[in-house]
Amino acid sequence: MTTAATETIDSFHRGRFQVIQPLGQGHRSGVDAMLLASLVASDRPCRVADLGAGAGAAGMAVASRLENAEVLLVERSPLMAQFARRSLELAENARLGNRVSVLEADVSLTGRARVAAGLADDSFDHVIMNPPFNDASDRKTPDALKAEAHAMTEGLFDAWIRTAGAIARPGGQLSLIARPESIAAIISACGRRFGGIEITPLHPRAGANAVRILVTAIKQSRARLTLRAPLVVHEEETHKFAGFVDDLNNGRAAYCRRR
Amino acid sequence: MTTAATETIDSFHRGRFQVIQPLGQGHRSGVDAMLLASLVASDRPCRVADLGAGAGAAGMAVASRLENAEVLLVERSPLMAQFARRSLELAENARLGNRVSVLEADVSLTGRARVAAGLADDSFDHVIMNPPFNDASDRKTPDALKAEAHAMTEGLFDAWIRTAGAIARPGGQLSLIARPESIAAIISACGRRFGGIEITPLHPRAGANAVRILVTAIKQSRARLTLRAPLVVHEEETHKFAGFVDDLNNGRAAYCRRR
Repeated sequence: MTTAATETIDSFHRGRFQVIQPLGQGHRSGVDAMLLASLVASDRPCRVADLGAGAGAAGMAVASRLENAEVLLVERSPLMAQFARRSLELAENARLGNRVSVLEADVSLTGRARVAAGLADDSFDHVIMNPPFNDASDRKTPDALKAEAHAMTEGLFDAWIRTAGAIARPGGQLSLIARPESIAAIISACGRRFGGIEITPLHPRAGANAVRILVTAIKQSRARLTLRAPLVVHEEETHKFAGFVDDLNNGRAAYCRRR
Repeated sequence: MTTAATETIDSFHRGRFQVIQPLGQGHRSGVDAMLLASLVASDRPCRVADLGAGAGAAGMAVASRLENAEVLLVERSPLMAQFARRSLELAENARLGNRVSVLEADVSLTGRARVAAGLADDSFDHVIMNPPFNDASDRKTPDALKAEAHAMTEGLFDAWIRTAGAIARPGGQLSLIARPESIAAIISACGRRFGGIEITPLHPRAGANAVRILVTAIKQSRARLTLRAPLVVHEEETHKFAGFVDDLNNGRAAYCRRR
């Protein structure tokens, strides 16, 4: 008998960076994290916070594509934070340099406790999040760590977006990826904190229901919500969008806001 | 000088029924009303309430396509209700027979007042609505009647969907058409009254932002929300959806729920 592997090293952006992830436990990052990262579009120096970063794939993807981005990975789980730190020490990730760092902190902290934990007010140009989710109708989560990562509660978007609203600078951008059934909770949590909400449904194929929504919003904007044309991952007839989604997934393109 | 016309007679469903509408005042029904009507899919005898029916186009479109549907047009404005009654008396609408009637009542009535006005509990298989809306960024409404029809307030969806939840039978269907920025208010108003929400964005062209959302939901369902593939009115390359939207607009097809 052989000992089962307890972790993997996964390549993203066609090998441009690597992420060490626990195998068979914890949330594993993939396309969701890459699409989330694609929502950050800025050639200028900018500070980015990845809330609930897990092993750090999304935040590292931002730093991989944007050479002027400085990224803070915020993760509550000591185990996942340690995976992120070890990834950053990999020789293969040397090009991310010292632009990515890890902060072990609970995203849902508020007020002084949040600031004391290292999340200061008005200090980030971009805040990104791929919040954990769970649902009674999903298949059971087979382990405690994944259960924690997927422990979506009703108030989670409120708590996380409240923190995003506090730490983003005025005019700063919130970006997130979530499931379609969370759309009302997200909009409600944005409230008066974030406006100009842009929502893009992501469909696996033309004609199929959306499996994710990509959401961006601007702190203190009063612009109205827009529902953008969908992204279709596998375009059966024309392959028109598949190439673009592949570019987003591999860090060759950003998914820019319309305004 | 000639006297300006004060009303028009508009044909829908390629001439299968006609609607008298005020010209230059009041909300004028068109494609929105026809798409709303397309959401009612039932070959069996069914009772349908059209809340805020205006001149009655949407409810009449349901009766036009579904020979077993009995439709109640509910409208607060005496003027618009009178337009609806006159339309029903047109010889051209004889095939709608006595299956469509008009109730002059305020949709936002509650409790005994609502029942006394003629809207009994648990009595409709389908409730449809094209709620009035307005927005400060829209062009000004040029007349008082249209202003009333477009006087969307924050609580309107709550009040209207509360009434829909009361008058729909258990398992009955709510259908509505609205603007994308109302999505959170609609989902919130559905609350525990309606579940299994299905939302379909309507885009004028591929790549353009959605201009409307089509929403259906089932009374007392606990199924999760789904975001369906969009409808594109003008498909530039393939014209694939244009034909289907045209069928919906002309009463040759229903837009059925997925489950």
